[in-house]
Amino acid sequence: MASQQFDPPSGTRDFLSRDLRMREHVFSVVRDVFERYGFEPLQTPAFERLETLTGKYGDEGDKLIFKILRRGEHEATGAADLALRYDMTVPLARVVAAYGSQLPTPYKRYAMGPVWRADRPGKGRFREFAQCDVDVVGSTSPMADAEVVCAVAEALDAVGVADFRVLVNSRRALSGLLEVYGIPSDLGGGVLITLDKLDKLAPDAVAAELMSARSLEAATARTLVDDLTAEDAVDRVRVMLKDSAGGRAGLEEIDRLIDLAKASVGGHRLAFTPSLVRGLDYYTGVIFEVVAAGMAGSIASGGRYDHLIANLGGPDVPACGGSIGVERIIGLLDSQNDEVRQTDIAVTVIDEDSAAELMEFTSELRKSGLRSEIYLGSSRKLAKQLKWAADRGARFALIYGQQERGERTVTVRDMESGEQTRVPVHELAEHLKGGCAASR
Amino acid sequence: MASQQFDPPSGTRDFLSRDLRMREHVFSVVRDVFERYGFEPLQTPAFERLETLTGKYGDEGDKLIFKILRRGEHEATGAADLALRYDMTVPLARVVAAYGSQLPTPYKRYAMGPVWRADRPGKGRFREFAQCDVDVVGSTSPMADAEVVCAVAEALDAVGVADFRVLVNSRRALSGLLEVYGIPSDLGGGVLITLDKLDKLAPDAVAAELMSARSLEAATARTLVDDLTAEDAVDRVRVMLKDSAGGRAGLEEIDRLIDLAKASVGGHRLAFTPSLVRGLDYYTGVIFEVVAAGMAGSIASGGRYDHLIANLGGPDVPACGGSIGVERIIGLLDSQNDEVRQTDIAVTVIDEDSAAELMEFTSELRKSGLRSEIYLGSSRKLAKQLKWAADRGARFALIYGQQERGERTVTVRDMESGEQTRVPVHELAEHLKGGCAASR
Repeated sequence: MASQQFDPPSGTRDFLSRDLRMREHVFSVVRDVFERYGFEPLQTPAFERLETLTGKYGDEGDKLIFKILRRGEHEATGAADLALRYDMTVPLARVVAAYGSQLPTPYKRYAMGPVWRADRPGKGRFREFAQCDVDVVGSTSPMADAEVVCAVAEALDAVGVADFRVLVNSRRALSGLLEVYGIPSDLGGGVLITLDKLDKLAPDAVAAELMSARSLEAATARTLVDDLTAEDAVDRVRVMLKDSAGGRAGLEEIDRLIDLAKASVGGHRLAFTPSLVRGLDYYTGVIFEVVAAGMAGSIASGGRYDHLIANLGGPDVPACGGSIGVERIIGLLDSQNDEVRQTDIAVTVIDEDSAAELMEFTSELRKSGLRSEIYLGSSRKLAKQLKWAADRGARFALIYGQQERGERTVTVRDMESGEQTRVPVHELAEHLKGGCAASR
Repeated sequence: MASQQFDPPSGTRDFLSRDLRMREHVFSVVRDVFERYGFEPLQTPAFERLETLTGKYGDEGDKLIFKILRRGEHEATGAADLALRYDMTVPLARVVAAYGSQLPTPYKRYAMGPVWRADRPGKGRFREFAQCDVDVVGSTSPMADAEVVCAVAEALDAVGVADFRVLVNSRRALSGLLEVYGIPSDLGGGVLITLDKLDKLAPDAVAAELMSARSLEAATARTLVDDLTAEDAVDRVRVMLKDSAGGRAGLEEIDRLIDLAKASVGGHRLAFTPSLVRGLDYYTGVIFEVVAAGMAGSIASGGRYDHLIANLGGPDVPACGGSIGVERIIGLLDSQNDEVRQTDIAVTVIDEDSAAELMEFTSELRKSGLRSEIYLGSSRKLAKQLKWAADRGARFALIYGQQERGERTVTVRDMESGEQTRVPVHELAEHLKGGCAASR
């Protein structure tokens, strides 16, 4: 029996209640923080027109887009006209282009939801996964960058990510550095792509790649890598950047960001990091990455990308944003397995004839906010039903037999102590609310 | 300029903050009710394997499935291997098959989220729309049916749908009726499909179709339609059903359902409705539809479908469920346009040099739960910034100039009265929380 025929498609997951509740909790905490910063929610469709997405993510990205076949008579052509959302940024660009003046200026929006990429599935890598993004479109203020960093950091704090640090750099500082090293601007992009590997490869390997793939001279490659990985890298680079106008501007925006964000994030958590590059070439100003103790890679990142919206088909407006790698965080919290009580009240059914009365008082319990379940199986044995109540993790089980019916009471069984009390039907909701509240 | 190039794809929608908040509110209210009934959330992927979906929705349904093209070297074949979720029931059947004994018995689950159908878009008809379903898998108890009806009705109540009624019938009662009329069982399915149109077409038109398309004799067609549409239809049908064993069983399950649900739903809202058919042929027991004053069609529906899970590829377990037409309800509430305050606090920026201090106290405000926005535009004119604060619907605007800075105070401007007060920075959060709470 090929039982995997019932598995969800490769790279996707079914979320049953416990996992789903955990996820919803994380989203709700993050949402709450973003809302307090005045970001507004935006939800775009799961799919976009194919031409809206193609060509926006590079050749490699294009291959990972899930394309939707045309329908009806066009299905036979094998052509696609729609494609699943690949990230939250291209839809944002489309929305800014479409709604323009109807949006507030600046437009501060957050987006949380699934995106789809036809990546090879692997441990912690999915084809359907969630993104949590904040972006500010239409402001050049350094405070906008700081707001993004603060919102991301506060959300991580609120979710319960312990020990994290925000690494800060600037594309202008990086360009200034290349200028000081006399690296021609046409080589700059490639050099940065290689330097971005400094957090994964040994310095020697990076230096080698700078020579082989990026045509740098050995001496230049060597000192560049040495300077960026030295213990006093920050001081060395600070001194060097003074020699370039771009470098000075970059340093200034880094210091400004740290200064503006430090009250909220904590100065000790913010660090100018000269070797931080961020692979994506659309960043134009400050860039940041959040790293957490004991986790490889980053758990959040972002920066300023002043022309991306225009490149994606929107108007040419300045923008900055950040994104939280929420799947990684949920994975992190998952191990903090907290037992959640499944239900407050389990209602046993001893006597079919009393079902209507039993549904009546259960309805009252639910309306008063108690999570209440009625036994829906076919057994009429109390012992079996009490086992069900225990399996459901109920705080109290209710028994409503002939005797109780005669005196308009319900027997309340405390599932922790086993103690049983008869409670008048009209006092039941109050009694149980008190009991459930006391044991929380 | 073809500005529709920036519209979302045909039949889909972008939800900006106001609409999205309204939707999220409805989902959250519905979820809360479902949870109190002990239903557990389930979330399955946006897409399933193509073979999981094809053949499950009839020929017409198959044409409406959005299919996803194979990727990489297989893309050129034009073949699909995945398809977007078409409803919540087939994924439920797959999950029941996949997780079997890991699920509680019965498995009471709710699912809320988008489904996709390549229908021709129209007013109120979308290609991406949300469903809110509750189902009980693995119980034959009439209380399970009643729980579904009660949960759906209570959710509608909680969302604020005024005047609604729950129409109840049973497939067994319908079969009994056909039997009493001497209609051969092989014609029964077609007859029911035509009778289902009684809520849209004139009785004469339905009678005509029963003759032309369903081969009924004129006299039979005529009296059947007359009986079902008569003012005393309920009494007539009750009497007739007594002559059939199936009819008696059907009547009994209808009365039982109404009896069990009436305390929670209200007896006046529950009505045995002999002409209720429900087009879908997978129902096996009680069926229901919820109709609301002033709305054509139903806003919720469901019933018992004891073999559907098996037909969909799962194990043969009894099941019943209901679904709320949440898009229609949101459309209904949409007109009750309530002004939501966008933000609590608008922080003006008069002096760039004070930005760090300003971010510091704003951070405190946010941490104390106040939704606070900082002016991120380039103007340094107070009048312009106060206009921005008004546009954002802020309750208070804050001004932090040279004077305030010197005395460690902030000027708080009441945006309703225009009154201004200086408040020490360390008292600011308390002061504003009080002010915002008082005006809610």
